[in-house]
Amino acid sequence: MTEIFTPKELERRLRKIGDERYHNLHPFHKMLHGGKMNFGQVQAWALNRYVYQTAIPRKDAALMAKLEDRELRREWIRRIHDHDGYGSDDGGIERWLKLTDGLKLDRVYVTSQAGALPATRFAVEAYVHFVYEHPTLEAIASSLTELFAPGIHAERIAGMLEHYDFISEELVAYFRKRLDQAPRDSQFALTFVLKNARTPEQQQAVLNALKFKTDVLWAQLDALYFAYVDPGFIPPGAFRPE
Amino acid sequence: MTEIFTPKELERRLRKIGDERYHNLHPFHKMLHGGKMNFGQVQAWALNRYVYQTAIPRKDAALMAKLEDRELRREWIRRIHDHDGYGSDDGGIERWLKLTDGLKLDRVYVTSQAGALPATRFAVEAYVHFVYEHPTLEAIASSLTELFAPGIHAERIAGMLEHYDFISEELVAYFRKRLDQAPRDSQFALTFVLKNARTPEQQQAVLNALKFKTDVLWAQLDALYFAYVDPGFIPPGAFRPE
Repeated sequence: MTEIFTPKELERRLRKIGDERYHNLHPFHKMLHGGKMNFGQVQAWALNRYVYQTAIPRKDAALMAKLEDRELRREWIRRIHDHDGYGSDDGGIERWLKLTDGLKLDRVYVTSQAGALPATRFAVEAYVHFVYEHPTLEAIASSLTELFAPGIHAERIAGMLEHYDFISEELVAYFRKRLDQAPRDSQFALTFVLKNARTPEQQQAVLNALKFKTDVLWAQLDALYFAYVDPGFIPPGAFRPE
Repeated sequence: MTEIFTPKELERRLRKIGDERYHNLHPFHKMLHGGKMNFGQVQAWALNRYVYQTAIPRKDAALMAKLEDRELRREWIRRIHDHDGYGSDDGGIERWLKLTDGLKLDRVYVTSQAGALPATRFAVEAYVHFVYEHPTLEAIASSLTELFAPGIHAERIAGMLEHYDFISEELVAYFRKRLDQAPRDSQFALTFVLKNARTPEQQQAVLNALKFKTDVLWAQLDALYFAYVDPGFIPPGAFRPE
């Protein structure tokens, strides 16, 4: 492995990973956005995705625990504000709970994570551990799935409002907000990665980190599809729609 | 939570978890042992299960890193010997590779884990991390799925030899050996747990640890079933049978 990429070529390869592996390609999302799911399936999705949402500030705190550079911490802490809320903003996790409220899921049940699929928890914790255990450069690179997020959020907002009578503007507030936040965050992370991945080994590690993250997102949808769509085997103890 | 169980009642509750949640109940195993799988599906199973096998000595080393008691370490180290091999015994991982050899899988490919399902890796690493992060009592309790293993191994040996012409006595050597090892290990762990789980909180933690471990095993079969049986969606980058 001796080839070194220009920043432009590295960016092209990072974006290609999104084109080939981002979870907008997963059949579960095509069904969800296309109005092909019943109420219980949308509940299962929101309930499981909560596990991911609520882990993100821990992931970002794990990353900040590595940062010696105060300026970098001052930049990164905005992500924790965005999810946990700060000042007058209730934050993304609260907006996600507005969605699960609207889907008639009990908050205590949702936040206990008791009904989530074990595979969801394993994938999410793999992400938190990855950030703990890998160098800052790779930990930051693993956040770059946000480069691909605005497209899926726009599609989700339009698709879910159009197709489901139980989805209202208030319930999609989480995604609406992310349309602004994700590009700001991902642009910062991309600039950092392109600047700091200088050796072939670092560049390969950065590409692998982003692949890993696409696996984390994809595996969550595999588990949802398996349990709630086809063949519909719900594991022992997991949420069962009424 | 104030109820305290007698050792006998705690054992009954631990065994009940096995009756309800052990992965012998999973449809993937019923197919595997009943001769309902094709060669590629058996390959996928062996390839993915390798990821679990090869992580077990790391899990046991993580547990030993907590043990202040030399006698306990001297007992537990046998598990690492069993899997990694010691002296004239090549160990369980080598026996597993005999199985993947027999299934015409390339050793470099198998041991690279490159073709394993991401969900397999997430579940297996969740187990290793659980042992790192939880008290010794819970870490030991999570090994108690071995109480239920001899039944599944006996069923597997008989079923696979009977139903698959590509399975020979040599290829099932791993399971044959575990018929002796698992009862010895699980009896030690059970005695330890029953003796040391003295408060209601410890007893509940021990029951939860075993449930967690059944989730780890179950989730691996969910992922295999999803990718290679029904609906048969193989995630990006994972092994594709010829």
